[in-house]
Amino acid sequence: MEKLLYGVAYYDEYMPYDRLAEDIRMMKEAGINVVRIAESTWSTHEPQNGVFDFGSVDCVLDAMHEAGIRVIVGTPTYAIPTWMVKEHPEVLAETPRGPGRYGARQIMDITNKTYLFYSERIIRKLIGHVKDHPAIIGYQTDNETKYYDTAGPNVQHQFIKYMREIYGNLDVVNAKFGLDYWSNRINSWEDFPSVVGTINGSLGAEFAKFQRGLVTKFLAWQADLVREYKKPDQFVTQNFDFEWRGYSYGIQPSVDHFAASQTFDIAGVDIYHPSQDKLTGIEISFGGDMTRSLKGANYLVLETQAQAFPDWTPFPGQLRQLAFSHLASGANMVAYWHWHSIHNSAETYWKGLLSHDFLPNPVYNEAKTIGRDFERLSEHLVDLKKRSDVAVMVSNEALTAMEWFKLPGGKTYNDVVRWMYDELYKLNVGCDFIHATSDKLDDYKLVVVPALYAASDETLERLNEFVRKGGHVVYSFKTGFTDEIVKVRTSQQPGLIHEACGVSYSLFIEPSNVTLKGDPLGIGAEAGGVHTWMELLTPGTADVLAYYEHPHWGQYAAITRNSYGEGQATYIGCMTTPEVMNRVLAGALKEAGLWGTDQALAFPLIVKSGINKQGRTVRYYFNYSSEPVAFDYSHGAAVELLADEPAIAGQQLTIERWGVKIIVE
Amino acid sequence: MEKLLYGVAYYDEYMPYDRLAEDIRMMKEAGINVVRIAESTWSTHEPQNGVFDFGSVDCVLDAMHEAGIRVIVGTPTYAIPTWMVKEHPEVLAETPRGPGRYGARQIMDITNKTYLFYSERIIRKLIGHVKDHPAIIGYQTDNETKYYDTAGPNVQHQFIKYMREIYGNLDVVNAKFGLDYWSNRINSWEDFPSVVGTINGSLGAEFAKFQRGLVTKFLAWQADLVREYKKPDQFVTQNFDFEWRGYSYGIQPSVDHFAASQTFDIAGVDIYHPSQDKLTGIEISFGGDMTRSLKGANYLVLETQAQAFPDWTPFPGQLRQLAFSHLASGANMVAYWHWHSIHNSAETYWKGLLSHDFLPNPVYNEAKTIGRDFERLSEHLVDLKKRSDVAVMVSNEALTAMEWFKLPGGKTYNDVVRWMYDELYKLNVGCDFIHATSDKLDDYKLVVVPALYAASDETLERLNEFVRKGGHVVYSFKTGFTDEIVKVRTSQQPGLIHEACGVSYSLFIEPSNVTLKGDPLGIGAEAGGVHTWMELLTPGTADVLAYYEHPHWGQYAAITRNSYGEGQATYIGCMTTPEVMNRVLAGALKEAGLWGTDQALAFPLIVKSGINKQGRTVRYYFNYSSEPVAFDYSHGAAVELLADEPAIAGQQLTIERWGVKIIVE
Amino acid sequence: MEKLLYGVAYYDEYMPYDRLAEDIRMMKEAGINVVRIAESTWSTHEPQNGVFDFGSVDCVLDAMHEAGIRVIVGTPTYAIPTWMVKEHPEVLAETPRGPGRYGARQIMDITNKTYLFYSERIIRKLIGHVKDHPAIIGYQTDNETKYYDTAGPNVQHQFIKYMREIYGNLDVVNAKFGLDYWSNRINSWEDFPSVVGTINGSLGAEFAKFQRGLVTKFLAWQADLVREYKKPDQFVTQNFDFEWRGYSYGIQPSVDHFAASQTFDIAGVDIYHPSQDKLTGIEISFGGDMTRSLKGANYLVLETQAQAFPDWTPFPGQLRQLAFSHLASGANMVAYWHWHSIHNSAETYWKGLLSHDFLPNPVYNEAKTIGRDFERLSEHLVDLKKRSDVAVMVSNEALTAMEWFKLPGGKTYNDVVRWMYDELYKLNVGCDFIHATSDKLDDYKLVVVPALYAASDETLERLNEFVRKGGHVVYSFKTGFTDEIVKVRTSQQPGLIHEACGVSYSLFIEPSNVTLKGDPLGIGAEAGGVHTWMELLTPGTADVLAYYEHPHWGQYAAITRNSYGEGQATYIGCMTTPEVMNRVLAGALKEAGLWGTDQALAFPLIVKSGINKQGRTVRYYFNYSSEPVAFDYSHGAAVELLADEPAIAGQQLTIERWGVKIIVE
Repeated sequence: MEKLLYGVAYYDEYMPYDRLAEDIRMMKEAGINVVRIAESTWSTHEPQNGVFDFGSVDCVLDAMHEAGIRVIVGTPTYAIPTWMVKEHPEVLAETPRGPGRYGARQIMDITNKTYLFYSERIIRKLIGHVKDHPAIIGYQTDNETKYYDTAGPNVQHQFIKYMREIYGNLDVVNAKFGLDYWSNRINSWEDFPSVVGTINGSLGAEFAKFQRGLVTKFLAWQADLVREYKKPDQFVTQNFDFEWRGYSYGIQPSVDHFAASQTFDIAGVDIYHPSQDKLTGIEISFGGDMTRSLKGANYLVLETQAQAFPDWTPFPGQLRQLAFSHLASGANMVAYWHWHSIHNSAETYWKGLLSHDFLPNPVYNEAKTIGRDFERLSEHLVDLKKRSDVAVMVSNEALTAMEWFKLPGGKTYNDVVRWMYDELYKLNVGCDFIHATSDKLDDYKLVVVPALYAASDETLERLNEFVRKGGHVVYSFKTGFTDEIVKVRTSQQPGLIHEACGVSYSLFIEPSNVTLKGDPLGIGAEAGGVHTWMELLTPGTADVLAYYEHPHWGQYAAITRNSYGEGQATYIGCMTTPEVMNRVLAGALKEAGLWGTDQALAFPLIVKSGINKQGRTVRYYFNYSSEPVAFDYSHGAAVELLADEPAIAGQQLTIERWGVKIIVE
Repeated sequence: MEKLLYGVAYYDEYMPYDRLAEDIRMMKEAGINVVRIAESTWSTHEPQNGVFDFGSVDCVLDAMHEAGIRVIVGTPTYAIPTWMVKEHPEVLAETPRGPGRYGARQIMDITNKTYLFYSERIIRKLIGHVKDHPAIIGYQTDNETKYYDTAGPNVQHQFIKYMREIYGNLDVVNAKFGLDYWSNRINSWEDFPSVVGTINGSLGAEFAKFQRGLVTKFLAWQADLVREYKKPDQFVTQNFDFEWRGYSYGIQPSVDHFAASQTFDIAGVDIYHPSQDKLTGIEISFGGDMTRSLKGANYLVLETQAQAFPDWTPFPGQLRQLAFSHLASGANMVAYWHWHSIHNSAETYWKGLLSHDFLPNPVYNEAKTIGRDFERLSEHLVDLKKRSDVAVMVSNEALTAMEWFKLPGGKTYNDVVRWMYDELYKLNVGCDFIHATSDKLDDYKLVVVPALYAASDETLERLNEFVRKGGHVVYSFKTGFTDEIVKVRTSQQPGLIHEACGVSYSLFIEPSNVTLKGDPLGIGAEAGGVHTWMELLTPGTADVLAYYEHPHWGQYAAITRNSYGEGQATYIGCMTTPEVMNRVLAGALKEAGLWGTDQALAFPLIVKSGINKQGRTVRYYFNYSSEPVAFDYSHGAAVELLADEPAIAGQQLTIERWGVKIIVE
Repeated sequence: MEKLLYGVAYYDEYMPYDRLAEDIRMMKEAGINVVRIAESTWSTHEPQNGVFDFGSVDCVLDAMHEAGIRVIVGTPTYAIPTWMVKEHPEVLAETPRGPGRYGARQIMDITNKTYLFYSERIIRKLIGHVKDHPAIIGYQTDNETKYYDTAGPNVQHQFIKYMREIYGNLDVVNAKFGLDYWSNRINSWEDFPSVVGTINGSLGAEFAKFQRGLVTKFLAWQADLVREYKKPDQFVTQNFDFEWRGYSYGIQPSVDHFAASQTFDIAGVDIYHPSQDKLTGIEISFGGDMTRSLKGANYLVLETQAQAFPDWTPFPGQLRQLAFSHLASGANMVAYWHWHSIHNSAETYWKGLLSHDFLPNPVYNEAKTIGRDFERLSEHLVDLKKRSDVAVMVSNEALTAMEWFKLPGGKTYNDVVRWMYDELYKLNVGCDFIHATSDKLDDYKLVVVPALYAASDETLERLNEFVRKGGHVVYSFKTGFTDEIVKVRTSQQPGLIHEACGVSYSLFIEPSNVTLKGDPLGIGAEAGGVHTWMELLTPGTADVLAYYEHPHWGQYAAITRNSYGEGQATYIGCMTTPEVMNRVLAGALKEAGLWGTDQALAFPLIVKSGINKQGRTVRYYFNYSSEPVAFDYSHGAAVELLADEPAIAGQQLTIERWGVKIIVE
């Protein structure tokens, strides 16, 4: 990327009165150098079937270009016009909850041929129309694409073909998926029932995988269309998003990000997170690490929050801190959803940089300082290269399987992922994400594996091999329990990895009043609590790091570490407090030779680093708290960029509340 | 009204055996002088399509007349017979939850022409049949009429016509309602989608307004029909009810009481409320003030509780207290739902004055004392005229808009209304309700405006003008935020009233650990807590009554007061404890010259007053607690009516637990 | 029964690889002597419409026979094949929630003639095929049969015929069911609406009764079919189950066990219960007493838990304790659901005796000791005869009626049943269950009657007569309130039993801060708390055992006891703590002369006894706690069977945690 992008989503179509000139003036004042347009306004661009009007697009493109602001144009396909639904009600997705209703976005069947016909036409018309405009630096296909639970008869029909293609014959299907159970056997293809009501977790998980495949296919189809028009120096991206718990929480259940991102030139993402007193930076780091890992490269934050909701409006200083937090994870662009605040409809309280009154306000004023610093420091901060020795292995398949077989208390896969990831973050350990099928294990020294509940023999063998050759792995409970079809392994648990882990179990319990025996991690008895799940581990060759404290299960191990080949595998058989996880990861990091001075610093002081275009190490230091934090700078002579002040090893530095320092060695 | 009415709903049709003579004997013993009949027994009166049988009506009318008990006859249209639904399933309302099912009352589409045909016929047959009966003093149309979420294709069709009539063309609709958002634009009338699935709050709110219009129209149609038959000295009324939270809580969302009541001679209402330890009298006061305000006149309590539910059965004394509480708010009738307790079906545990055994019981026995006192004191207590200097401004439009845009924690418009109203009640301040479009502001000295979230420029201007001319207004947060289409104003907030309030804001927050700085109201730090919503107010000309206590937002004002023209406007930018509201209202009352001796008395001692037919001031004193309460009588020489004892100024009077005194000067 | 049966459900069809020989070897090692097969694998036995394959059945039968393991064969009708639903979608039950979806078991309309045609055919084919096999000791029809909420138009049509048959004409129906209410009258049979949406509790309860009748009819039809094939020495049974609250909680709402069990030779049941720290033995006792009472004979536990869920996996010792607990209640068979743990689909975490790895594990190893002891002690323990002086009277009709008219807090009939039953259990009082229509009251000295809310005059008269002749009854609140049509009685409450109880009431309250006045039961004020429901009792001839402590209701009685004829009736007008119930029952037991030495022992020490085939008294002593418990043996000289040690009167015995002793006099 030539320089850092600082942007906003801009909807001229939504404006209550003509604002374009004034908005551009205010954008320039705030250092905004890119806008994202058009991704949800199909009904404006095609007011009637086959009638096109790109006036608002032309107008914005021209004005932005004149102002030197670049533009990313989105295809408008994720929100469909009224006329289409009136003419073709069948474009609405039929879901397990019934037929669709017009109103919201993201309600269509992305496999419906009528919808695809109209989508192709509007894409060709729009992109064909703007393709030569010099303001455009790239395109976004659709937006936050998912499969919207589409599961109608036509989708079921496609699923049967998918099953036949993969598994060939029904004997195989019945055996692998265990369809004898409760008389679910399918003895003839025409008997294949809709899986909407299935109680078979293997079949349900396979259907979800098939549905994720629909997303991959749809996005590739759109990207190919756009590529027919785009210039070589323009990119095609997609705005991926995460499991939503009122904010970006974890792995996206409905999209295989690794597969779907293949077609794109650069990965884009939206990241939303708690703010004010609840701001930790974790979601920014999580989303950034994930998106950077998709293509092993810098990425675009196409959406993040400005004012947003009443409980998210940033404290003074936080908007600045957030912008640099994204850069520290490898983002080359930070853009707000959205410029102004919407006056009608649904997202009125998801406020933009401007309030509804369009006047300067404290948040906008803070953005001006960011724009200034982005511009000033771009050459130091753009294209930050990050190299991680640690990877977190994740899997949509494991996630879906655990939706079918939930942990007690309704806990899910992403709860386990975050339980492990969050402690890596707090330990200032940079990491990548890899998919369970990744063949790049050897790029890492330590792989962290949360609840890889559904995994093929190949994956587990590859992990064993990684340890054998000197790698370190930290596994959580439930890993390896089922194969890739969500069939529980008939071997001893934890599946094939019991070899590297040197441990086995046949019983598992929902713990009640259980702790780790004798405070083996030195964190106090209370912090040693075990909850949700406990496997009654019997060590083979493994060393026991902790036993359970319980009147009946006290002879079983809770956490073990095993030397295997040249490496080590740690197995955590239960869900624990964050403190336990922190200590176990710290131990594994030390064993793997990955314990450095940054790890001595503790959250809320967070350090992120990378190598800039000049080959120099850039270190971001963040204070995610309402009190100033001091620390001893421990690296070579350097310059703090924001204040433009020198820093030397051993010097004590203080970061103000919700502050950031950027030190280039 | 000639005399106080003390009544019951009476369903001869529901009786397990012939009870009429004995029931009338027991009614007479209890002083019951009016019964309400027929409003839910269509299937008895028209057992088959076109076959009519008013035997039970005739029988009750004759017997009541002979006993000197008057009768209010209801049209039976709110519960439809089985034959109608079997012949015409389409009379059932199709709602957003799907097609209707037979069983409950209030399940029909009140716009369905078949239903209307049958309704007209049964009304004409019934009223035509009884019109000359001397027992009848009035008629009730339908019962607790609402629109029952009717939203099927025919209703959508009518809504489109309504939209075209009001807004003329779609460009206006698209602009005002912000339909560009998420591609919801409608570019041709035939593309107008069902709004059942809309995510556009402006459109959704307009549809609710249209639906409330259906109720107004339906009731006027019924009243017109009845008026063709009724005698000049008979009234037509309707039994309005309130937002239901297991009891009568606030403004009715589904009916515009102000509009719907126009057609009636006298307003009727049902009021239900918590009882036993939770009895406060607030709902009686709220419902009474609202109903009295509809026509600026005395009203009928057509239904209230006798024994009712297991948690409502009154403590000894409470039934008496409740009866007089209604009178103190201006009721001329107090009637119980219902005489006996129903032996089958759904409302078996909503017990009447009699238990299922029809024997005298403690509640019935207490009713006998009420009947005696109503009879004895009728000339003093009937037609109480009440004059208020304070009005609470309410709005169905604001209520609906805030359903679309809820406060954090699921709080709604009525929570804000009650937060303000309850403190007026506890301060013994009599008040009226006025609609936001009222042109009678000048009748009042102080207007209290809870969360007038959706309001036209005209309304806000009228409020500014009221202050300019010397009026006092207390506004809550969110007032003026959107226009009448629920479009957020593009001007500075709080909309046009920022002029009279001398304050503005552009950010708002969901408070966490926020109080008012320095206990400015002298109520202790804890009582100064702020929750749910806080606007970061910047005072212009306004004085600051309180700042926020918060590490980051401490420079912003929470509550302000501004002198503007001859008057004053207080603006409360946050939701507070009851104590804060109480103090702010007390301050405004003092500024407005409305602080009197009654305000020195505090809940649980409640005073209500008015002028009786003899032109004398009647004061009701209630003790809503389980302990006796003493107070100094502060008005002129008078008589306490219940005990028939004299009272003089300065005399200490004691009210027993759950007791009442009625003092006529 | 010739000997104790120790069994497992065995699904060869679900096995991931050929296990039969190894499984049988391991079964033999564990003393398993019976397996239950085939009850849910229709699609394996009939892979296509009319194509039959009983290979897996034959194979298992032969192998088991060779190993000396007996077999119970189930009809596979409770889970239907895919081809049936594809060919005949109408076999799926239409429920109040809409049309059915394929996937789960128990989704069919058990009145559908197509389903019945196929069911008959598979039953005749399967049973006809295996009928001569010497391994088979009995048959099970279907499994956990219920009516699955079937309520489609065809079921409504049958219901109308049922109503006409029972009540003859609609005037009777309208009167009895109170259909005038809310215009629900039916004046012509063709107007009879679907009752799916009814709000009439009487009608709704009658429909549920009709639906339970469908189950009785369906099971009798299946049993008759099987009987055409079975040998004289083979039995036909059904696997009944209970109200499910995540475990077997109370009376089954959807099946009238008393009626449905008539057709069977022996009653079977499944019993699941909390385990680990929450194990009390109550559900085993409850389910056992109920099932034994159905035919007044020993019964089969066709399913109970082995490892089951993560929160049920037994502590060491508990599996043994559970097995003997079933025997102590009169079971002749204890079988686990299921042998292995299922690798796919829905019940993966409902683990069997073996884990998914099929290896020996601690639970399996404990089973081996049980199998050994069952074999060794069978002659002493099989066919235990139990004789109870106490009966608990239960009623599906009362249960359903209270579903329509729930207690505050959502409490239901079974909560009341368990509140009373649990204290009988803790007092070591053996008891039977009898239906409200039972004519065997005279077999008992004390009858406990929880909330017999819906009951005919005949039933109440019979209870009065029982007391008159010297019986003792303990009633809870709500008994007698409505008749068998759920019409509230018009007489004084508590209905006809007020005669024997010598008490009446007309008001009832949801208590708040109410206790029993003056600690009349000597259990401390806190334990005297009253909740959920209180009737304001006025004693007639009754003695008052406790008054309410309350500022307003203190003059009313809470618990009374009345001498009537030769007997006594205790009436408990409120829901209380367990301690109160315990004391009231203890009092009634003493009055009835039923207080013995076993009652001096207290939970967690539980005693159960009976007479064995040799005519000797067998006493089981259980310690349901994690601490050892000691007690003085108080009966004649005897032998403790498990350890084969003598025991004499007065000797102190200690039972280890979760232990059991079996002493034969």
